[in-house]
This record gives sequence, C-alpha cells and structure tokens, in this order.
Amino acid sequence: MAMIYLDNAATTPPNAAAVEEALRLLGEEFHNPSALYRASFAAHKRMEEARRAILSCIADPAKFALEFTSCGSESDNQALFSGARRGNFVTTQGEHAAVQRTAEELSRRGVEVRFAKLDRFGRVDAEDLLRLVDERTSLVSVIHVNNETGAVNDVASLATAVKRKFPRALFHSDGVQAFGKIAFRLTNDIDFYTVSAHKIGGVRGVGGLFYRKGAPLHPLIFGGGQESGLRGGTENTFAIAQFAAAAGRKFASLAADAERAARLRGLFLEGLDADIFSALSPQDGSPYILSVSARGLRAEVLLHMLDDNGVMVGTGSACSSKNRYSRVILACGLDERTADGVLRLSLSSETTEEECRCAIEIINRCARELRERMR
Amino acid sequence: MAMIYLDNAATTPPNAAAVEEALRLLGEEFHNPSALYRASFAAHKRMEEARRAILSCIADPAKFALEFTSCGSESDNQALFSGARRGNFVTTQGEHAAVQRTAEELSRRGVEVRFAKLDRFGRVDAEDLLRLVDERTSLVSVIHVNNETGAVNDVASLATAVKRKFPRALFHSDGVQAFGKIAFRLTNDIDFYTVSAHKIGGVRGVGGLFYRKGAPLHPLIFGGGQESGLRGGTENTFAIAQFAAAAGRKFASLAADAERAARLRGLFLEGLDADIFSALSPQDGSPYILSVSARGLRAEVLLHMLDDNGVMVGTGSACSSKNRYSRVILACGLDERTADGVLRLSLSSETTEEECRCAIEIINRCARELRERMR
Repeated sequence: MAMIYLDNAATTPPNAAAVEEALRLLGEEFHNPSALYRASFAAHKRMEEARRAILSCIADPAKFALEFTSCGSESDNQALFSGARRGNFVTTQGEHAAVQRTAEELSRRGVEVRFAKLDRFGRVDAEDLLRLVDERTSLVSVIHVNNETGAVNDVASLATAVKRKFPRALFHSDGVQAFGKIAFRLTNDIDFYTVSAHKIGGVRGVGGLFYRKGAPLHPLIFGGGQESGLRGGTENTFAIAQFAAAAGRKFASLAADAERAARLRGLFLEGLDADIFSALSPQDGSPYILSVSARGLRAEVLLHMLDDNGVMVGTGSACSSKNRYSRVILACGLDERTADGVLRLSLSSETTEEECRCAIEIINRCARELRERMR
Repeated sequence: MAMIYLDNAATTPPNAAAVEEALRLLGEEFHNPSALYRASFAAHKRMEEARRAILSCIADPAKFALEFTSCGSESDNQALFSGARRGNFVTTQGEHAAVQRTAEELSRRGVEVRFAKLDRFGRVDAEDLLRLVDERTSLVSVIHVNNETGAVNDVASLATAVKRKFPRALFHSDGVQAFGKIAFRLTNDIDFYTVSAHKIGGVRGVGGLFYRKGAPLHPLIFGGGQESGLRGGTENTFAIAQFAAAAGRKFASLAADAERAARLRGLFLEGLDADIFSALSPQDGSPYILSVSARGLRAEVLLHMLDDNGVMVGTGSACSSKNRYSRVILACGLDERTADGVLRLSLSSETTEEECRCAIEIINRCARELRERMR
C-alpha cells in the first residue's frame, strides 16, 4: 500500500536531488574544513558558500550572520541561554518544546519566566505579551509559525513593539515552521532566528541560528573554535551543503508552493466531514498546517486507524507525543475533549492533490467508523 | 594526482558500504521516530537496535546506557556541565579543545579547575592527577587517547584510583580517538565516555555519550523529551544507522586493524629521515597516530609542500589549527622550536602500505628541500 504522508511538520523526506548533489561530499570532499590542506579549504569554501546562500534567503548579509548548529532545538537553546541571562524572560504559551523546556530550565536557574496568552487559534495575544515586557526583560521569544495550529505570529511587528517599549530587550523567534514556507525577511529588531534543515527537505544533523551582527551570542557547545567560536564540533559539511540545496529549491518556488498548499488545505477544509471535524487552525495561518479536532473521538485511536488505511498524520507536535493533551491546544482555550481529538495534517510542496482527495475520503470513513463504534 | 590522506584523526572518509546501507533510510525510513504511526515506530526500532549494537561494543548494557548527541564536542560539554557543578573539576593539560574550552567556561562559572601535568609523550602524570583530587572534586576528566600524540591514558585504572581516593567524584573520559581503534571496555568506575562517529568511518552529525546507569546526567539541549529526556531535537536516524554500521565494521576487525596500523606506523618510524624528524609519540601509543617534529622547520610550510606533492597531514589538532603552537605539545615540555615543527600523521584501517611508503619518500624529500631553503 502506497502511504500518504501528511506529517511534514514533524519531518520531511530529504529532497532526493539535493541528497544526490551532496552525496559527492561524503566521498570526495569529506575533509575537515578546519585543517590546512587544499581539500580542507575547498570543504571550508563550499560551507561558506552554503552559509551565504541560506543567509541571503531571509536576511541582509550586511546586518545578519548565520551560525550552523546541529538542529532547531540547539539553536533555540543557544539563543535563550545567550539572551536570557538575567531579569526576566518573556515568551508565549504556544512555543515548541525546545523553547518551553529551556524556559523551565531558565526558571530553575533563577531567571523569571513570563508566558503570554494565546488566542483561540494559537496566536500570541500581542497586548498581553507587551504588558509582560518591562525594564528587567532580557529576552523575548515568540514562535513564528505555531507548529501545532499553523497560526502565524507577526514577529517583525512584535519585535518592533517590544523594542519600542524597552530597547534593550533582545528578540528571538523560532522560525522552524516558517523558513522556506512563508514569505518573510528578518528585520533589524529581530536579534535571533531559529531554522532547521529537515523540515524543508534537508537531512537531519543541521540547523541554523541567524543572529543580528552585534547581538550577544554565547556558545552552548564549547570546543575548537568552529563557527567563529560560537560552536565547537567538526562542521557537518554534507548536511550543510544539502541544507543549502534544499533551501535554494524552497525559496525558488516559495510563493507558488504556498499558493498550491493553500489550495490543498482548502480541499481538507471543504472535504472533511463537518459533523465530526472542526478546524482549529486560523484561515490566515500557514498553508502547510491544518489542525482539526474530531471532538469526542480519541485522536490517537483515529491516527492508528488512518495508519492502517494508508494515511500518516500527526497529533500536535511529534516532540510531545507522549502527553495525552497538547499544552498548546489547551492554551488556545479549548477543552480536554476537543484536545483529545486533535489531528495535525501537515503538507509539503510534494503533496499532491490526488493524495489529499484520497486522504480526505479515508479520514472521513475512519472517523465515521470510529464514531459508530463509540456509540 | 591521487592524494594520500594521512589526517584520519581529524576526520575519516565515511565508510562507503555503511553509507550505502544507511541511504535507504533517507528515502524510505525518514520518518520522525517520535511520531505514532508504524513507519515512525520502525524508525524508532532501528535507532534502538543501533544504540544497543554500539553500546555493546564497549559496555555491559546492564550497567551502561548510550545517549546519541550531535558530535563528540557536544558529548564532552554535556558530561562536563553535568558532572562539574560545584567544588573543583580536575582534568589534564592534554585535553581536546571540547574539554579544555568547557573547563575554561566552568571556571568562569565559579568551578575551580585544576590541570594535571603531562609526561613528555602527552600522557597524564597519574600522581599529579590524584594529588589534585580532593573531597571537593565533583568531576575528573582524562582523555583516553591523546589526539595529538596518540598517548594512551589508562583511564580504567585512573578512574579506580580516583574513586579510591574520593568515591563521590565522577569520572569522564573523551574516547573519540580510542573508540573502534584500541581494545577497551568500560569499567564501573567510569561514569561518562565520549565517542564520535566521523572518526571511524561514520558521517558527521552524530556522537555518543556512554553513561553509567545512575550517573547524574543533565540535558545540554532541552526540548521534546528525545533520548530519554537527555537531549531535545529530532533524532538523526540516518547518521545513527550509519554510525552503527561503521562501528560494527571497526569492532569486527579491531585487533587485526590495530596490528596492521602498528606495522604501518613502524614504517614511518623507520623510514622518516632521522636527521630531520624525531618522534613525539610514545612507542605504546595508539597505532593510528604518529606525531613527529621536524625541529627548526615550520610545520605549516612543510604541510603545504606535502599537500602540493600529494600528501595530506595534520599539524596537531585540526580544531586548534589557528594557533601557531599546540598547547598540548608545549605541555609535554617541548620547546617552541620543536612545537613549530610538529606534523601529525594519522592512519585508518584503509591506509595502505603503498601509500605509506610513498608518503615517507615525499615527506623526506620535501623536508630536505625545505631545510636546504632555510639554510
């Protein structure tokens, strides 16, 4: 049975052409980019080209730099531990676990952590966020695209509002679900921005942390001076080259892909049985993420039925799949019965219309069957 | 020109067969191992098989566990920040930058750091190390195989001696240059042990931290609860599978490979012009690393000549190649003129006798030419 993969927000299949291009590096250009012979310099040069290419996708290279890390979680951790060293740290109830759990650790280390409320779609309440910022705020972190509902926070405006209230506060955003998917450029009020390769067709093993030149960034992993002293560890040149190739492909057709994804997402909104499913995602959210709830049904049971019938979907964030209820969904003000029925359908630019039509039919059929069983 | 690669301690070419095996994962088993459908569970299961396979290479799975990290530097950082939370931290003057720089950070955070002396081959002075351990010592860290000279520290005995003196002190060893290269099993007195995939034919993007069950280990990267809550970030299943395959190959022929490497290393010891080169490595060091000094010549100049003539070698650690003198070589009690002339020749199980004979001839020729020029 050919499976339909609708969990692209958890991870994407690596782009085959980008892997093909990068594979050569494993054989011919495997050298340590920090060594001194020519092959190393070539590896170093290719890595710097990849850095420039990825950097220029969303930032002005005169104002921003890009550090390669091992993953989005590492980037989030480094930004938070660098920025939130004192006073208070302001974030939202809608963050990915990499920010949420790091916030909890900051709290254990004596930094006061303040969580801004969400609206019912998972967007941060801007007024509440700004209310929490004061002259003791060292860092504010707001997720760009909510990984569970797809809600988009206007991080450029939020960053500007934060700096207007207190110019010395730093601003970070986790852009893992936004990078390569929605049109966006880094503005001067954003200090740190997290991205990850494997959510856009890259392989795992590399993430990125964009930072405003001059922003105070400290290593999380100390070592041999790689990444301008910001991160120890031999650079993962294969994954970096493949990341650049995957990003290049995404940004070349970003608008067209997003339009197409929006159309496919619309098919689900129209086609899913309205007697069973209600959409949790906002209309103006990421076109790649559609969160729905089959209130009264257990999403986990439905997920396994769908899996048996050829459709792979998520339930909120894969990273927190051990908890029954998503804290983010509850923070949207939804009750536990609604939270219990949440499925996350996430698309990629590779998802086809036929897959969507087929998935809608299977999802409706399984949900009806499950509802019958429950009666 | 076919190049002869003698910098395997910096990084190794990924094992082609292991890459071939693992590549399928990029296409067919790319799924996030934390999701709930069957393909994810299969990815999870394969990762756990890889973990067990790597674990059993050097440890009793009843007593030790293995955490996958992104690289050896991350493992070192996590072990040190976990273990050295108070009192003093005892280490050696012969550590890799990932331990050395982390020690400096610990010192900035208020932990007293004590460095034990080295003998002239780069081995830690055991008496000095034990003298530094007292009832306020929280962690001791000793590199297993020195990455610059190949000197082997008897970490099992050192760990036992440390615990005898003060049982509550934890013991860590950076085993990056030992794992898969010299025969060794973890003993009960070792709490943490660092390894890296890309030094034994694995791809970059994965390292490991072995830890004694019950040893206090804290996350360095907080996130979605992966790796039993010890490390956030989607698991790098491709690199992990390839790591297991590469390790399997190494351990299957470890003794024979080491014997062969020792013979090749012997060729260099015999063949290099004794008027120019003196060996810094001890006779009983790792068979894969031979550090020599062409005292009076600048190693960097020689390195570039060798590169032009088809031989790639290192100068000490690639990670610290920006400094003129290696701090480790100076800590061996060697003078700056000797330190200035250090070349590190590092072999792998793939290095051939023909390559070595050819390299010896080229190294001698280039060194003589350089000496002539300097006169």
